[in-house]
Amino acid sequence: MPLKVVVIGGVALGPKAACRCLRLAPDSELTLVDENTYISYGGCGLPYYVSGEIQTLDALRSTNYQVVRDPEFFRRMKGFNVLNQTRAISLDRKKKAVRVKNLATGQEQELPYDKLVLATGARPRVPNIEGRTLENVHTLTRLEAADVMRKACETGSVTDAVIVGGGFIGLESAVALADMWGVNVTVLEVNSHLMSGVLPNTMGLMAETDLKKHNVRVCPNEKTLRLEGKNGSVCRVITDKQSIDAQLVIFAAGFIPNSELARDAGLETIANGAIVVDEYLRTSDPDIYAGGDCASIKNIITQKHGYLPLGSMSNRQGRVIGTNLAGGTDTFPGYVGTWCIKLFDISIAAAGLTVTNARREGFDAISVCAEQLDRAHFYPEKDMMALEIVVEKGTRRVLGMQGASRNGHGLKARIDAVAAALQYAKPTVNDISNLEVGYAPPFAAAMDIVNAVANTADNVLSGRFTPIDATEFTKLWRERDKNNIFFIDARPAKAGKEMEARNPEWHAIPLEEIADRLDEIPKDREIAIICNTGLRSYDSLLILAKNGICNVKNSMGGMQAVKQMGLDEFLP
Amino acid sequence: MPLKVVVIGGVALGPKAACRCLRLAPDSELTLVDENTYISYGGCGLPYYVSGEIQTLDALRSTNYQVVRDPEFFRRMKGFNVLNQTRAISLDRKKKAVRVKNLATGQEQELPYDKLVLATGARPRVPNIEGRTLENVHTLTRLEAADVMRKACETGSVTDAVIVGGGFIGLESAVALADMWGVNVTVLEVNSHLMSGVLPNTMGLMAETDLKKHNVRVCPNEKTLRLEGKNGSVCRVITDKQSIDAQLVIFAAGFIPNSELARDAGLETIANGAIVVDEYLRTSDPDIYAGGDCASIKNIITQKHGYLPLGSMSNRQGRVIGTNLAGGTDTFPGYVGTWCIKLFDISIAAAGLTVTNARREGFDAISVCAEQLDRAHFYPEKDMMALEIVVEKGTRRVLGMQGASRNGHGLKARIDAVAAALQYAKPTVNDISNLEVGYAPPFAAAMDIVNAVANTADNVLSGRFTPIDATEFTKLWRERDKNNIFFIDARPAKAGKEMEARNPEWHAIPLEEIADRLDEIPKDREIAIICNTGLRSYDSLLILAKNGICNVKNSMGGMQAVKQMGLDEFLP
Repeated sequence: MPLKVVVIGGVALGPKAACRCLRLAPDSELTLVDENTYISYGGCGLPYYVSGEIQTLDALRSTNYQVVRDPEFFRRMKGFNVLNQTRAISLDRKKKAVRVKNLATGQEQELPYDKLVLATGARPRVPNIEGRTLENVHTLTRLEAADVMRKACETGSVTDAVIVGGGFIGLESAVALADMWGVNVTVLEVNSHLMSGVLPNTMGLMAETDLKKHNVRVCPNEKTLRLEGKNGSVCRVITDKQSIDAQLVIFAAGFIPNSELARDAGLETIANGAIVVDEYLRTSDPDIYAGGDCASIKNIITQKHGYLPLGSMSNRQGRVIGTNLAGGTDTFPGYVGTWCIKLFDISIAAAGLTVTNARREGFDAISVCAEQLDRAHFYPEKDMMALEIVVEKGTRRVLGMQGASRNGHGLKARIDAVAAALQYAKPTVNDISNLEVGYAPPFAAAMDIVNAVANTADNVLSGRFTPIDATEFTKLWRERDKNNIFFIDARPAKAGKEMEARNPEWHAIPLEEIADRLDEIPKDREIAIICNTGLRSYDSLLILAKNGICNVKNSMGGMQAVKQMGLDEFLP
Repeated sequence: MPLKVVVIGGVALGPKAACRCLRLAPDSELTLVDENTYISYGGCGLPYYVSGEIQTLDALRSTNYQVVRDPEFFRRMKGFNVLNQTRAISLDRKKKAVRVKNLATGQEQELPYDKLVLATGARPRVPNIEGRTLENVHTLTRLEAADVMRKACETGSVTDAVIVGGGFIGLESAVALADMWGVNVTVLEVNSHLMSGVLPNTMGLMAETDLKKHNVRVCPNEKTLRLEGKNGSVCRVITDKQSIDAQLVIFAAGFIPNSELARDAGLETIANGAIVVDEYLRTSDPDIYAGGDCASIKNIITQKHGYLPLGSMSNRQGRVIGTNLAGGTDTFPGYVGTWCIKLFDISIAAAGLTVTNARREGFDAISVCAEQLDRAHFYPEKDMMALEIVVEKGTRRVLGMQGASRNGHGLKARIDAVAAALQYAKPTVNDISNLEVGYAPPFAAAMDIVNAVANTADNVLSGRFTPIDATEFTKLWRERDKNNIFFIDARPAKAGKEMEARNPEWHAIPLEEIADRLDEIPKDREIAIICNTGLRSYDSLLILAKNGICNVKNSMGGMQAVKQMGLDEFLP
């Protein structure tokens, strides 16, 4: 008897698992069910279709070699049957059968299985507010919605758009609409900063600054209350702070796993509804696999079940499930949380935990930032890069890293290397200090920033200096009347002098001069010191320490970080 | 009593170790000795000074914040004494003293130490051939030589240059001279292909193709016999195959560790002379540390002592030594061999062992290649990337990866991630299949090439197909009269038909048609199949296998690899 396999869901993981299964066990009888018309598409590409960078929707559902993946393609080339526009309505685990309904004809049928794959994905979270069903209110997960948005832009009927949610899809959509169509975009974010679930506030501010520079309005700490319409179409968004005109609204406020079928059938899920799977990607029923956006896999760092809905995870998991359907014993190790996003000028990437998430998970964690050129400083082409490393205090274990740079691929190189270390070891600060990454002047510094940020963490953990980030530094400056802190600018004379001229409480004492100007520095006041990136200020505080002045705060990332976070307006 | 430290060598590791030591133990009495005038310079930047991309030599010996690192800088800012133009002439371990000689005055003195650091570096290997002392015969490790070369280029007195050695420095020099000064450059390489110690022949050919496209002549398998001069300056290079005009010759044929002092003092060394150190970077004398280009550290993959003279290694090791001088117990884990180089259009990078080196080390290893776009195939900007993975057969352990792409930073991202996995684990093929790297369409494919190449290795190891590389495929084609192989081109009709028209032994059978054209394919002949990248050909061979045609060789990397290796002239 041939193996009977049913796969529910045909976007990323489903087709991958099906193809792999049939490669290894060509005699299997495999049916893939999906409730939509279009299957097997690159959902991550939708913002680039909206922007116009990708010309046709077919490009998103084509193979690498330019063949459109429609049901006929899978039937003919891959040897399995696709029932699209067909919804799985119930699952009978005892009988080992799935009941499905053709949404076009209304016909129902029962599909028996030996092995079942749940690849049902996730749906965008749409808050239950007034006006959410108006026209031109969208989410960005389906080809059809992307098409409507693009056509609206092309015909010029959208001049103002509001995006609810400052996460990946929200920001990619904001860039797409503002960059390519000149739409006035406002991003509403209910939390204190953009991408707050995966980024520290410092880098959230860097993202915000980049967006603002390109005329995207960013409104953190703002709650969307309702949408108002005109002739059935959305025309205005009302928040707890303002009213914003909008002919297009996109909800991008996270995802809800499509796991009702699984839960109704008694399969184990976590709090957000994602289906729990083991390392073989089996659910609590060993004949049922799940993966991708509907499943919960283990977070390797916390060792708890978590959720990372990314297309790359789905693809890799699909292959593992395909192997195991065919009798294999492949495993999927879990995730550490690695991602990247391109905004306008900068890209942002991260792996592992933010300091906030680490503390929430019970780690006694700190984070340390560095700003440095991404290539040898003598190499003519180069960009600044900011990295933040998250470390557990006692064990010195590295828990995560976040970064921002104009050189997105170069940033990815640093983050992916740390991601790999997090996956296969519990790296310490010392391990990342010595992380062996490729070096040549066009690509990295001899003491590369990925090593340097760990060195900085080492110095902080060893108590060699008290770090503050750019937000803390500017806050101290703004509250200088209260805190009586003495501010030193350790940059070369010119830059510091200009600011000193605007405000004499700003003391320009370049690194080269500090040893000779110790008498200008009060012994009885706390010191805060800044330079361009944090290097000169560190060397300065070593000189201060040698001379008995130890109550010094060092602004990590220096003026570079201040500027990237858009905080320079608060300094002289 | 303050700690007395003597550091011999002032280029990369020496100053780093000295600065770090004094940060942690500011009361140490530290003296750094170097026989040259200039110290603390970025030797890796010399090719970019020769090319003119870096304007001044001072840029190579400046801090990130633009201060020139001369002896006075270290004295004033870092608190240690530098004796430059001073050579260490003998080491008395019993007495714990180094005898040094000022090369300008001839004066000698003895420097007592509690702890000694050997940072003596390495010197270029110059073959003992006639003419090697002629003028305009150089190596590229000293600022002075770089200056002479650049001035010769600037004044137009060099129209032809020969570079002896096709390794990192040789190729960087070739690019510098040809790209920026239009010099006719010939690279002589005694081995079968460029960078043969660290690259498979396939990627050596890719490097060669890139160089040739930019008018650099590459002569593999060629031995330099002697240099001929005119008025004391070099004018011609005589090899075992030809005579080449040259007004400039650069020897770039590897390095010899400067370890005479250590060996004479009885410290342990390996065969090439490099000084053996332990994980604390201590030599066989616990009061003497060594690191950088003069030292031998452990290869993490082979667990044997090896040699990786790179500026980045020196910098990281310098910090560890500095910590340990000050009483710390930092360790350095060894190396896996990670590097990158930018040529003209492409960059090349690698981590771990090549298949040749792996076999030499006793591993039963194979290697598998893949060609794929570096970003989502629907994303408008993208480049091809080639990766080769090296795997031990029985254990499925990954031993190394090499790659080439126009997107150098993107290539580095893949290689550095694998490098990190190699450092902290013994990753298997399955681990790299599931390696979690950042994904977004502007940066990677959902099933990224770094995962895909491991998937391909998995398929090969499982016997699902017989891979051949582009060199093997073209060889089979050229010998088709003897081997009677049936050649299939699985690309879309147009490309294949054109070649078939030129030679009917080339059979254009697109993937889409193969199932319907099985009767055209002989059952009694071996098949070799090619497409654009290896994906269509893989899908084609699955269809053939399903129909009982199993004696099929699949050309990995397809026509892309053929072209990148400059082998397309051998096909129709």
